[in-house]
Parts: sequence; structure tokens; C-alpha cells
Amino acid sequence: MSRFRITIAYDGQPFAGWQKQLDATTVQGLIERALSKVSGCGEGERICVHGSGRTDAGVHALGQVAHFDAREGASLDSDAWRRALNVNLPPTVRIMDCAEAPSDFHARFDACRKTYAYHVHHAPVLPPHAAGRAWHVFGKLDYAVLEAGLASLSGQHDFTAFAANRGDASDQSSRVRTIFDAWLSVDGDRLILRFSGDGFLYKMVRLLTGGLVRCAQGRERIEWFTALLHRPTAAAKAPYCAPADGLYLERVDYALDPAE
Amino acid sequence: MSRFRITIAYDGQPFAGWQKQLDATTVQGLIERALSKVSGCGEGERICVHGSGRTDAGVHALGQVAHFDAREGASLDSDAWRRALNVNLPPTVRIMDCAEAPSDFHARFDACRKTYAYHVHHAPVLPPHAAGRAWHVFGKLDYAVLEAGLASLSGQHDFTAFAANRGDASDQSSRVRTIFDAWLSVDGDRLILRFSGDGFLYKMVRLLTGGLVRCAQGRERIEWFTALLHRPTAAAKAPYCAPADGLYLERVDYALDPAE
Repeated sequence: MSRFRITIAYDGQPFAGWQKQLDATTVQGLIERALSKVSGCGEGERICVHGSGRTDAGVHALGQVAHFDAREGASLDSDAWRRALNVNLPPTVRIMDCAEAPSDFHARFDACRKTYAYHVHHAPVLPPHAAGRAWHVFGKLDYAVLEAGLASLSGQHDFTAFAANRGDASDQSSRVRTIFDAWLSVDGDRLILRFSGDGFLYKMVRLLTGGLVRCAQGRERIEWFTALLHRPTAAAKAPYCAPADGLYLERVDYALDPAE
Repeated sequence: MSRFRITIAYDGQPFAGWQKQLDATTVQGLIERALSKVSGCGEGERICVHGSGRTDAGVHALGQVAHFDAREGASLDSDAWRRALNVNLPPTVRIMDCAEAPSDFHARFDACRKTYAYHVHHAPVLPPHAAGRAWHVFGKLDYAVLEAGLASLSGQHDFTAFAANRGDASDQSSRVRTIFDAWLSVDGDRLILRFSGDGFLYKMVRLLTGGLVRCAQGRERIEWFTALLHRPTAAAKAPYCAPADGLYLERVDYALDPAE
């Protein structure tokens, strides 16, 4: 058996998120269909692909990671897999890289660091090429408040206030996560808030971004934000969720990857 | 009567080009409909918008320029026009700027310089966010050949070999144009070929780009390209047309604009 690790980029707009669903087009569903077709699976057979985690409807990825096991006797090498899968996927989903992986590699359980980028377009008009790909924010926005808020995130925190309920068992799990780094990049009208950490709760990056932008607009005080972060209670929830349009899963790192 | 000058950006993918057509969605058609709605025009009345020139189906614009005349008694100022038009346009078409113009300003006849950018994505895989927005070229590509070819374009030339027939009276007009400057920018996998000149023939930028890329791939000699440029004949035509996806009308300049 050969296990392959794939790096996937997708434009989230046309999809109902990563995770396969019976009645909606999802990235995982499309990749499993392409894998099964390339592998010559019969009716009812399916090759499973395991992602590093889910992304929501409309959320983009530049470096989602997943693994799959080739069927016994499959003779494709990693480059041939990449090409064959891309031929069978829409241009909005691309296998950027494919490599053979150790047989015990697991895209979800072995991930040790994820980096998300949230794109805010700060200008009176959202350019047409940014539609669906950034959050359009206009008017007053204090970048120093964004920077201070992002800096306050580093370290281990209970993110209860910045997690939405999925309505499943995961709602009962620990909501303590470690943020390794969170920082702002500015390039003209484009602000990018980056969050790098050991894991992220459901809607966590969007709730953090929504809260920080609200503070930078002067509509909430930064003390409100830091209180939710440092003194969480079961009842207090951050109510401002930034739209999916601006969110990108940029990369997933694994313990055994060479340092850059 | 008040004349307004608008700067328009659009994603060309959903549209059958700039120029209005009876049975297809075009950028000019959408803007005229929005203008007429905002102006409270009755059935059959229409406010015309005059662009600096046409763009083809699938071609993008970052700085198309047009003008229109407000109806007698209309009281909107330029900022209000911008906002009102954008509310009545899809997110793929945006009025980036609106300003009052002299009553004899003409977006087409007064244009003295246009700049087009052609985006080539040179990598094994075209990222999903570049789909429809760049030409995917992979394999060998000699950037020095692109640079030399672009440099050879400066000056006045008869571009007969790099013009497609429109099938109308314009096919009989002079095909002499002046290129002020043409140059290559490289940013990672993204190559941008820019062409700045006093005017461009039908498909001229795409035929120039297609020919240059062919040379850079080593599939034609650069002497073939420069012969078409310097010794045009009625019969010799450049046969390689780059796809619309990569083409952007970046800006249109007017004689009276302040220098940057």
C-alpha cells in the first residue's frame, strides 16, 4: 500500500465547504470522486481522502493538506497522481503538490501548526477581482488597534468566547488552544491578519477578526476584546463573525517537515 | 447639463465584453441600465455611456474610462453617482471613481495613451484563484526572449500582422500605431507583459503576447516575430492569439490629466 500526501488549493466560493455531504458539492467530495475515477473504482467503491480539518462554505485554501491510500497494485507515481487528479477536478480546485508519505502519516492527527490568513480590503470600493475573496471594510479603521489586538493573542488561551457551536460532540471538548503568532500585514488597501496556532475552533478566526475590526472601527473597546480572551465565561460570546469570503487556510505544518 | 467621467473596473469572465448587445450581458449595457435606473428614466429612455474603447469577452479592466451626461435637473454630485451606480451593478463591475468633467470631454476621442497588462502564470499548476484571470503557461520559457521582444515594440509600427479583422469598416483603417513602452515584470510565478501606446488594434495585445510566448518557448525564432513587425505584408499574420483570461485594460490617460 502506498500513502500519498497532497497539498490542495481551492477557491471556496462555489463550494459547500471541505467536508463531503450527500447533497452538496464539496472539495472533499470532488477529490474523492476524482481519486476513485483515476483508480478505476467500480460502482459503490470509493477511495477516502483525509483532510487536516474542515473549512466552511466559502472559505478558501492555499495549502490544505490531505492523505489517501492508493489501491493495491496502482502504479502511478506522485507526479502522475497530481496530473491525473487535476484533469478530473474543476479549475477552482487544484492539487498543488503530491508526495509519497510514510504509511502512518495522518493529515489530521499529525498536523502541529496551522496558519490562516484573513483578508480585509479597506477602501471605499471593493475592486471586482476581490469580490468573494476579501471582506470589504470602509471608513475609519485604526490599524494600531488591530496590531495590539493580534499581539494579545499569542500564547495559550481558552477561546470559549470565540467558538461557535457545531451542534456535535466537539462542542464538549476543550477550547484551549495555543496561538504561536498573530500579526498584521498591510499592502496598500489590503490588510492581512495572520493567525498561526496548534489548532482552531469552529469559526474562531472569523470571530477573532470580526471582534478586532469592530474595535479598530471604534465601535467596541479593545478591553472588551481582551476580557473575552483572558476571562472567558460560558455565557460571554463574541458576536461579530467576519464573512467567509476573506478567510484562507494558508498552510499546515507537520512535525517531520524540514524547517524553512 | 453636467458631464461625468467614470473609471470602471470589471472582471471580464461573466460578460460578453464591453460593448452593448441586444442579446448578451455586457459591461456597457449594465452601466447604461444602472444609469437609467438611478436617473429615473421612463420606458424606452436611455442614458448613453461612451467608453474609451471596447474590450472583448473575458477581458478584464482595472481602469476603463467612460463618460455620460446627467439628465437636465439631476442633482447628484460625483460621489453620489459612484455610490448609486455601484448599488445597481453586480460586484463584478465597479465604478472606482467618478468626477465631473468639462462638457466637451470625450472618453474615446480624447484618450492619448492606453496601458494593457497581460498576465501569464508560469508554473506547473495554475492556482485556483488565477483561473480565468491569467494564461497558464508551463515548461520552458526564456524570459530574456520576452524582454527582447517587448523592447523591439517601442516606436511607430504598422501592426497589420498583429490585428484581427473585425469584419467592419475599421478593417480598412490605418494599422499604424505607436507603442510608447513595453516591458516585463516578474513576481514569482507571475509574469506581466505591459504595453503602453496611443491605441491598439483588435486582438493586438493578445496576438503580440501569443507570438512572444511562442518565441520564449523556443517554438518560433524571435526573427520571425520582428520580421512581422518591421516588414509587414497584407498576407503575413501572427497566428498565435493568447487567451482573453490574461488581458487587463489597466489605465487610459488623457492629455489634460496631471502628470503623476
